[in-house]
Amino acid sequence: MFSIFPLKGTISDIDGFFCDGVSANLKPNNALDIGFIYSDTLCEVETIFTKNNFKAAPLRHYLKYQQDFQTNFVLINSKNANAMTGAKGIEDIDEIFSQLNQTFPQIKNPIMSSTGVIGVPIPKEKIVKKALEFNLENKNGKELSEAIMTTDSYPKSCFYEVKLEDKSTFRIGAIAKGAGMINPNLATMLCFICTDAAIPQEDMKELLENNATTTFNAISVDGDTSTNDTVMLLANKKSNAYDKEAFKEVLRLVMHDMAMLMVADGEGAKKAVAFEVNGALNDEEAQTISKALSDSLLVKTALFGEDPNWGRIASTIGASGASCDEATLKITFGNILVYNCGEILFTKEIEEKAAKVLEENSFKITCDLGIGSSSFTAWGCDLGYDYVKINADYRT
Amino acid sequence: MFSIFPLKGTISDIDGFFCDGVSANLKPNNALDIGFIYSDTLCEVETIFTKNNFKAAPLRHYLKYQQDFQTNFVLINSKNANAMTGAKGIEDIDEIFSQLNQTFPQIKNPIMSSTGVIGVPIPKEKIVKKALEFNLENKNGKELSEAIMTTDSYPKSCFYEVKLEDKSTFRIGAIAKGAGMINPNLATMLCFICTDAAIPQEDMKELLENNATTTFNAISVDGDTSTNDTVMLLANKKSNAYDKEAFKEVLRLVMHDMAMLMVADGEGAKKAVAFEVNGALNDEEAQTISKALSDSLLVKTALFGEDPNWGRIASTIGASGASCDEATLKITFGNILVYNCGEILFTKEIEEKAAKVLEENSFKITCDLGIGSSSFTAWGCDLGYDYVKINADYRT
Repeated sequence: MFSIFPLKGTISDIDGFFCDGVSANLKPNNALDIGFIYSDTLCEVETIFTKNNFKAAPLRHYLKYQQDFQTNFVLINSKNANAMTGAKGIEDIDEIFSQLNQTFPQIKNPIMSSTGVIGVPIPKEKIVKKALEFNLENKNGKELSEAIMTTDSYPKSCFYEVKLEDKSTFRIGAIAKGAGMINPNLATMLCFICTDAAIPQEDMKELLENNATTTFNAISVDGDTSTNDTVMLLANKKSNAYDKEAFKEVLRLVMHDMAMLMVADGEGAKKAVAFEVNGALNDEEAQTISKALSDSLLVKTALFGEDPNWGRIASTIGASGASCDEATLKITFGNILVYNCGEILFTKEIEEKAAKVLEENSFKITCDLGIGSSSFTAWGCDLGYDYVKINADYRT
Repeated sequence: MFSIFPLKGTISDIDGFFCDGVSANLKPNNALDIGFIYSDTLCEVETIFTKNNFKAAPLRHYLKYQQDFQTNFVLINSKNANAMTGAKGIEDIDEIFSQLNQTFPQIKNPIMSSTGVIGVPIPKEKIVKKALEFNLENKNGKELSEAIMTTDSYPKSCFYEVKLEDKSTFRIGAIAKGAGMINPNLATMLCFICTDAAIPQEDMKELLENNATTTFNAISVDGDTSTNDTVMLLANKKSNAYDKEAFKEVLRLVMHDMAMLMVADGEGAKKAVAFEVNGALNDEEAQTISKALSDSLLVKTALFGEDPNWGRIASTIGASGASCDEATLKITFGNILVYNCGEILFTKEIEEKAAKVLEENSFKITCDLGIGSSSFTAWGCDLGYDYVKINADYRT
């Protein structure tokens, strides 16, 4: 058996990984806006990228590397996505790295990752000027997690140590940005996961993709999203320790932690809500319904208003296209059953109890379809005035 | 040739059609909340219903009639959708009509249509009590169009007269409600179209469905929406005049008018925006992209902020799953080209001109994909604080 210890720390607490975040004046007021992850040995790397047809330049730059290439450097900036910038977007990245390499000859196969406004050329001079001052021996994980923020209201990171049966240990940590969990459209997220586990390349790909379904993809940050969405796993293998089951479990925890921090930080959101669907016809329909609920604007605004409007839940289920039946459906807010197989239980007393549930910062809405045995849980958040405020004027 | 005259008027200005709207105290402050359409001869009727799996009781009640049945009475209420109310929802309707029939024996095959909160039993006593006082000789179209409003900020109706080549004439009018063009989820709309044209039943179905694609479905009030969505065409054939081409054209105008009034009344919306897509690979993809743009929350909030954030337009196109290419795409706000086949034209001057376009109440955003010859235009609106306000607390 293995043990997993959640510890205070971040990616820079892993042996061999270094990072920092500094200001290149892309954001106003000297806010941190560029940073790096550096490894003193070459890492194997695996990514999940957005399925958006217009992949940003950093993603297209990455995809030009040979499969199974190794890297020791990731340059990250916020405020500019380097997206819709065509061939020039990639040329700019090449030029940035060509200049950095003169000062840092140890950098091999560097990767860039960007987030921010789409359709503006990357300010490469500002970035290069500041990046030339990087100290690759720094271990400033907190600064990096701040530098990658855009509309995030707090930095996001986690750190775990895993002890295997033979007493060997490995570590894994992550930093992430993402706060627009608004549905299939355009949620923008970046997540960098670092580990010293001796994981084989083929397991990296398999476990990263397996865990995405129930974590990042369950918060709607899935394939068909923004131009820059990236989940990256870097493995320097320094620990020599590895166990597939243990890694699978801790990787799921890491990805779950990051996904939950993003949901809770939904732009202007005050509530993190689990939409648990049970009794669906099959896995695909369970997922369809659960995500339809977490994406529905009318559900989101009702949550913001703390209004236990179960009719909107029902209507969203009906509109999802998945199999459902009024006569077998049950809807529960927290543990308050409000609709039971055709029977409306919504007395004044039950309505008040359900409204109490919605006053919490975090709760569960359960929909049992009663026609099959498949389940899925998607997470969502409420949508209020602050969402509009943040997004009506994001560029300025 | 035929001529189409848009005239001041509504459905009650058509020979043989009567209507009214009164208060049954479903809404507070004696606001109008129930009404009827009555025809002094039997009408043929055709409908387009929501594709939501949980069809409201009025829709299920309608579907129990034999195909090609004729009717002379539609009872309409707002404030309560009679949805998710199971078998009892239909029994309640039967009971309402059984009581009305005692006072109004002339009513044949009555239809009910409801809109409002989902999951609350219909207050049938209140409705019957007031409906028994209906004066079936009234021609109060304006009152009916007010009685069916929920979150609408104004009543919606139109009226046309058509003169055919042989100098014969027919009339067509409509009233509608709908203001939540937020989609694909749960936009709720009702539209009642009345005509005295001598239209054959088979043309009613064909022309209603044909015209839906470019009108109601182009504002995202399409099939998979709320539990109650209904478009109904009633034909009393009193005029003896009919020409298929003329009817097709005027029906399209009627449905377009109603759809545009709904878009412009999007909950809290200030701007009606046409998303014109050209040069798409095929019709389906043109529609997909156009609707993705009109549905995108990030686009809607940018419109609210009058921010010409063309990157969000591009990203939404890329995320739509339809074929597209940065190197052939053009994006135009009004007549200001901001992105031209890989070239970013967004100078300060052009940004200011584009921002000026967004200050208008109504404008067009054109996306030419440059890879095919298919076009589609969907209409949408901005999303601001008022949308949240209206929807956070709709039930109360």
